[in-house]
Parts: sequence; C-alpha cells; structure tokens
Amino acid sequence: MAKKAKAEAKKLKAKVAKLKTKLAAAQEATTPTLETPKVKKPLAVSPLAPAGFPALPVIGGVEFAAAAAGVRYAGRTDVMLARLAPGTAMAGTFTRSKTRAACVHDCQAKLATKVPDGAGAAIVVNSGNANAFTGANGQEAVDRLTGGVAEALGVPASRVFSSSTGVIGEPLPWERITAKIADLKGLLDPEGIEGAARAIMTTDTFPKGATAEIAGEGGAIKIAGIAKGSGMIAPDMATMLVYIFTDAAIDPKSLQKMVSRLTDTTFNAITVDSDTSTSDALLIAATGASSAKPITDMRSKVAKDFEAALKAVMTDLAHQVVRDGEGATKFVEIQVTGAFSDADAKTVAMAIANSPLVKTAIAGQDANWGRVVMAVGKCGAQADRDKLAIRFGDITVAENGWRAPDYSEEAASAYMKNQELVIGVDMGLGKGAFTAWTCDLTHGYIDINADYRS
Amino acid sequence: MAKKAKAEAKKLKAKVAKLKTKLAAAQEATTPTLETPKVKKPLAVSPLAPAGFPALPVIGGVEFAAAAAGVRYAGRTDVMLARLAPGTAMAGTFTRSKTRAACVHDCQAKLATKVPDGAGAAIVVNSGNANAFTGANGQEAVDRLTGGVAEALGVPASRVFSSSTGVIGEPLPWERITAKIADLKGLLDPEGIEGAARAIMTTDTFPKGATAEIAGEGGAIKIAGIAKGSGMIAPDMATMLVYIFTDAAIDPKSLQKMVSRLTDTTFNAITVDSDTSTSDALLIAATGASSAKPITDMRSKVAKDFEAALKAVMTDLAHQVVRDGEGATKFVEIQVTGAFSDADAKTVAMAIANSPLVKTAIAGQDANWGRVVMAVGKCGAQADRDKLAIRFGDITVAENGWRAPDYSEEAASAYMKNQELVIGVDMGLGKGAFTAWTCDLTHGYIDINADYRS
Repeated sequence: MAKKAKAEAKKLKAKVAKLKTKLAAAQEATTPTLETPKVKKPLAVSPLAPAGFPALPVIGGVEFAAAAAGVRYAGRTDVMLARLAPGTAMAGTFTRSKTRAACVHDCQAKLATKVPDGAGAAIVVNSGNANAFTGANGQEAVDRLTGGVAEALGVPASRVFSSSTGVIGEPLPWERITAKIADLKGLLDPEGIEGAARAIMTTDTFPKGATAEIAGEGGAIKIAGIAKGSGMIAPDMATMLVYIFTDAAIDPKSLQKMVSRLTDTTFNAITVDSDTSTSDALLIAATGASSAKPITDMRSKVAKDFEAALKAVMTDLAHQVVRDGEGATKFVEIQVTGAFSDADAKTVAMAIANSPLVKTAIAGQDANWGRVVMAVGKCGAQADRDKLAIRFGDITVAENGWRAPDYSEEAASAYMKNQELVIGVDMGLGKGAFTAWTCDLTHGYIDINADYRS
Repeated sequence: MAKKAKAEAKKLKAKVAKLKTKLAAAQEATTPTLETPKVKKPLAVSPLAPAGFPALPVIGGVEFAAAAAGVRYAGRTDVMLARLAPGTAMAGTFTRSKTRAACVHDCQAKLATKVPDGAGAAIVVNSGNANAFTGANGQEAVDRLTGGVAEALGVPASRVFSSSTGVIGEPLPWERITAKIADLKGLLDPEGIEGAARAIMTTDTFPKGATAEIAGEGGAIKIAGIAKGSGMIAPDMATMLVYIFTDAAIDPKSLQKMVSRLTDTTFNAITVDSDTSTSDALLIAATGASSAKPITDMRSKVAKDFEAALKAVMTDLAHQVVRDGEGATKFVEIQVTGAFSDADAKTVAMAIANSPLVKTAIAGQDANWGRVVMAVGKCGAQADRDKLAIRFGDITVAENGWRAPDYSEEAASAYMKNQELVIGVDMGLGKGAFTAWTCDLTHGYIDINADYRS
C-alpha cells in the first residue's frame, strides 16, 4: 500500500508541477483576439503514438507543399497544397452532418461533376478554422481558395478540392491563405508528404501516415495516405481529414465504390468522443502514373489485392486517429460477435466504445465489466442477458448472464494495465460481428476541450 | 489580465490543496477487498446542491426506516424500508435496458399482478450493489429480500417491491440485508423520509427530496418524493431510483398512465453522461389516507391539479439528479423549438445535452457555440443549417446559418460564467419542441469514475 501511495504521490507531484507550469503560462499570456494568431504550448505527444512518421514512398503524379499562413496558429504551418497529374481519378467520402462545412458541400458537388478530359487536380487544406456555419461567407471563402489555386496551377476550379478544419463558426480569413498560393506553388515537391501531414494538424499530437504496395500487372502499385484527427471523432462517413494517393490507374466510379465500402469498417468504426465533425472528409487520388496496367476488372486478383492494400492503409490511419484521441492513454479494440445482425453488432460495439463510464473505467485501469453490460443493455440491439459473454483479452469475465465462475479480479486488473486492450463481447444470438476502436477518457480530454478556443 | 491570472492562481491553489488532501487520503487508505465494506471519503457536496433537504410532509399511510447493513459501504446507512398502508395503489416506470437488474424484472412482474384485496405493500432498497447481471443468484436475492420483508410486515410477497443500486455484476450479499429486517421494522417512522433518502445514495453528494400539495375535494392531497442519481444517468424510462408517496386515493391504472406520461418530460429529459442504468426505477404509492374524495374522473379539475403537482415533484427531483451529476459545476437547460417534430426536438436536445465537446466547453466557460452546431448536425434530426438560430440565455449567438451580426464574444463569455445556463436552439422548421437538462463534464467526473469500484 505504501508503494501505491508513493506512486500516487509521484503522480500528484507531477500534476502540481504541471499546474505550476500552467499557472506560469497563464501569467505570461496576453489577451487573445480573433485577429491575432494564437501561440499555444504544444500538447505532449500521445503515449500511443507510433515510433515516428513512416517512410512514405513517392507516388508518381503527386507533389506537396506546406506553408504558414497564420489562419489561427502562429509559429507552425497551417496550409497544405497537393498537385495531381492530368488524368488523376478522384473519389471521396464525407461527413453526413446536416451542418457540414461549405468546403464539404463543395467537394461533394465537384466529385459529382463530369471531369474535363485530361484535367489535372489539386487539394488545398487549412487548419485552425473549419469554415463551418459561416453562411454565404463560407462558400465565398471556398471559391476564393479553390479559384486561386486553379489559376496558379492551371487546372479547372471544378477540380480543386478544399478542406478546412479547426474552430466552427468563425469566418475563414481566406485572404491569408490566397496570399500564400504563389509560395506554395514554388514549394511543390514529390517528397513533401510529411510536411503536408503536419500542416493539417489541429489538436493532433503527431502527424499520421500509412503506406502499402502491391504488385500490379506490369509494375508495382503504391498507396500513401495521411490523416488528421484527435477529437470530435465519431465519423459518420469518414473521419476528420484523410488524403490517400496512389499511382494506380483505375476509373473514378470503381474507386468510389471501393472507398465507400472500406470506410464502413475503417473510419466509420472508430470513435474518440461520439461527436461527429462538420468537416469529415476523405479524398483519394489515383494518378495512374504506375507502369502497371489499369485496374479494370474489379473481380480480378489485382483489384482484390489493391482493395486489401487500400484497406490496410485506411485501417492504419484510422487507428492512428484513435491513438491520438484527445487525452488518450489506452488503445482499445471492441470485438462484438454472435449478434443478431452486423448492424446490431455495430450498435453494441459503438455503445461500448462511446460510453463515458466504460472509458473512464479503462482510464482508471479498473476491470469494471459491469459497465460493458450496461452499455450492451442500453443500446437497443437485440440482447439476451443470459447468453452474453464478455472477455477482457483472453480472460472470460462473464458468461451466461453473470460473472464467470473462475473469474479472477486480480488477473483482470493486471490485464487492464496494458496500453492496448481488447474487449470481446459475444451476444450468443447469431452471426453478426463488428469491430470498433476507441480510446480511454482521461483528464487530458477535459484539459484540451475546456479551453480549446482560448 | 493580471486579474485573470490571479483568479487562475487562486483556483490552482485550491486544486493543489485538494490534491494534497487526496494524497493524504491515499496514504491513509487500507487495501480494499470485495469482502470488506469500503470506507470512502465522502465526495464534496455539489456546488449546484439546494440549500438543504426540504421539509417534507408526513404522508398518511407511509412509514420509513433506514439501517446500515454493510452491503458495500461502511459507516453509513445503506438500506431503506417503506411500509405502505392496506389499499395503497402502486405504479412505476423502469429502465428499458436489456440487461436490467433482477429487482427491476421483479417489480415489473409484481405491478402486472392482481392485488389481493386490502393488501398493504412495502418497498425495500439497498445501495452499494446493483444486483444486476448476477444470474439466478439475482432472482434468489430478490426473493429472499422481499420474502423476508413480507414475513416481517405481514404483507404478501407479491406486494413487496425492491431496488438495488451500486456495482453491477457482483453477487448481492442479501443475508446482510435480511439480518437487518427486524431492526428496520422496529425503526419504522412516518417522519423517516430524509433518512430513507440518505440510505439510497451512492455517488450522490446530497439526498434529494421534493413535495407538493393540492386542495382535494374535502381535504388536502400531499405528495412527497425522494430520488437518488448522479452518474449513469440517461434514463430510458425513469432515472436511477425515485420513490414518490401521496395520500391521494386514485386507482392504480390511472396512476400508472399519469406517471408514464409525466416521465417522458421529466426523468426522460435529463442526462448526465448518456449512460443508461440497469437499475432505473420509479415507484409511486398512493395510500388514499387523505380525507379528500378519491380521484376518479381524470378530466376533473382535481385530477389535473394532482397531475400538475406530481409533475412539479418529478421535475424537481429530476433537476436535483442533474444538479448532483458527477463532477457537475453547471446546471444547463437545453430548449429546442421550431423542430420538424417533438421527437426531432428531443433528438437535438439530447445530442447537445450528451455531447462531451459541448459539456467540456461549458465546464471551461467557453462560449463555443460551434459545438452546438456540430451536435445539431450529427444527430440525424431534420435540420437546415441556414434556418438555425442559437441563443445562450438572451444572447443570440447565431442565426440564418452563421454568427449573429451583433454577436459579442465578450457578452457570451460573461454569460458562460453563470452557474445556471440556458442554451436555446430554434430549428426554424416547424412546431416541435423539447426541453432537456444536463450538466457540464469536468475533471470531477473522471476522478469519480476512474476508480469507482476501488
């Protein structure tokens, strides 16, 4: 017990030190106004972060640039530009929010438009301001940004896609971004993807990238993707912002079908806080620069390999978003099996993944499986209490409607100390299954979100 | 700014003092085991608590007793017993959770059973253990408890209603409670309602009571109710535990209809954390002891007066549950109007009331109305961004799809410092309306729930 108290004391001392640091910062701070970019102490990198940004391959036909436009943040890049070669196929998935941002509406409209023959394309993204709920001003900002990029790069405006992420409801100072377009054009670089991943971060504590490669017919096909996302994560179609690039030659319709299908079990299977962003967007660009033959038959081996590789990239990026969940200290996989249907399995998995009581228990390393029972019970999916089984990792904690006969609180508590956890729920009713990913709910989440705008 | 820093310093000093107190507690604590009742430092009383427990009238035909059975907690009462006079009409509403506790199933079955002529009734409630997800053991515990009370008080077992609240999934040590039944019988007292309210508390920081009185035909009709609830609050039928007593003479069917109808806009309109308990139960007992004539015509003035008085008591208790929300520092009313339907209005109100991002912004006194926009957008209700208006108190912050032209961040920020807040959302679509109540999400919630079982 003395040991526990000592550990507690150590934690508290760190907390007090942290509080003192915060106090010092508060004493230094100057009154912020809307017009002055904010200098914020960077958040500590998530303990769940990968060792580093992965080595991403150059994707033929794609160049990146990043710049500091001072949209909201000072002392960091906050705009990225990607230029895509003529003939690139584009597809995307977006938030279903009814208050979605002007740039989301604009992307959706442009993806539904016939592509001029051999047209190039571009993606421009800013962080710091979401350009959401900004009325007519919102569309004007999108037009100015995409128009400016179109003119500078010589591509049709209908092929310039934009995203904005950050505070909702404040007019986007688009002129700060358009002032940087010439600089961005000059900086375009096939190896600039990591800089792009950094420029789109908001409360993210690390840039997110993933890659995969398959053998095409006549050459390799490469995929590289980047994402941002940390809070307001309960994607209803895609997560915050994701950009995936491939040199595959594939028609946009097939690409769209594939990415929509894959979104359901990757980005739509994660949650940090049950809140769905107004900006969620995933864009994929297939440049066709690979020497491999075009993928035309979606039942072919290469199409299946490509889809599997794309799924791996999307899953990896989705997991990285959870690993950077605001305040997260645990990465949790929720495996639901034996449900009446897949839809029911998803309802159960997301109810557990979103439950504040489950998530605080995980933060406290408490094997409080009763809260898993609670989440199953409340969510509306078909359930029979007396058929339910619950696992923490390989430890069966409950079955047949009550605590497992050989349940050991000690073993379960020891398991909860792991940084990566699996909670398994078998409903005992059918073949429905779904896997979701979430993180714990800690003081860090409150710290980050109680003063996000200041 | 120096003033702000000073205020911040003051807060931090209080926090450090609190941390030191916690450290002292941690150093004192002894290793808890499942078999030993827990000594827990009482939580500080919620800053939103009423000044004190209200003076509740004696309700003819009802007596109360409380005892310390050591179910889980030491040094406090944890069982209450209420004895109800022969002829008392009973009704109730319960959680719709599919993993609901054995005692909830038992109450529902008993309320559906024909009442023996002139039978009395009783309610027995323990805190510390929810007797939920405890398999066959769960029903046995209920039978032992209600059977024991039935024998001691000479009422049919089918008229003894029980509730259990606390940890889910651990077998209820019913023998600790049955051992106290004789003591409880000896302590029965018409004035014992406050003791009963205290005995049913778990993480509650104050006991909850409310009362109302109307003029019946030939005499006064009185209502007195008690409730418990602080976390796992998103009632799907009723909230945690509520017991209401009245001396009205009214038939059980009319009483049931009335209480079911009122639950929708009272207990079903509150949330602390979006998690729905396995134990939610509301029981109402009408003893008929008033000298007033029985209420037989539900369209009469007295029936309407009685329903209004009952609604006032239920609303008051529901608000007290939110005011004791785990970690709460703000009491927030969400008023949604102009929705396509009442159901849509409720969906919007509850999405705002449950959003962790809205709730942390409120905790941080940040007028982050963009998060209200986000919650409206994500919830699935019909919405037109460009018709939406949002109010904080009397301050219009957004209208017609963007920030109100005369919006003042200063005024909105000043408003957010209030302890009681109103967030108004007009959807601009129809006549649907709903009002919900919630609290903010603070570090206190994490503290309470990360180590609830230890």
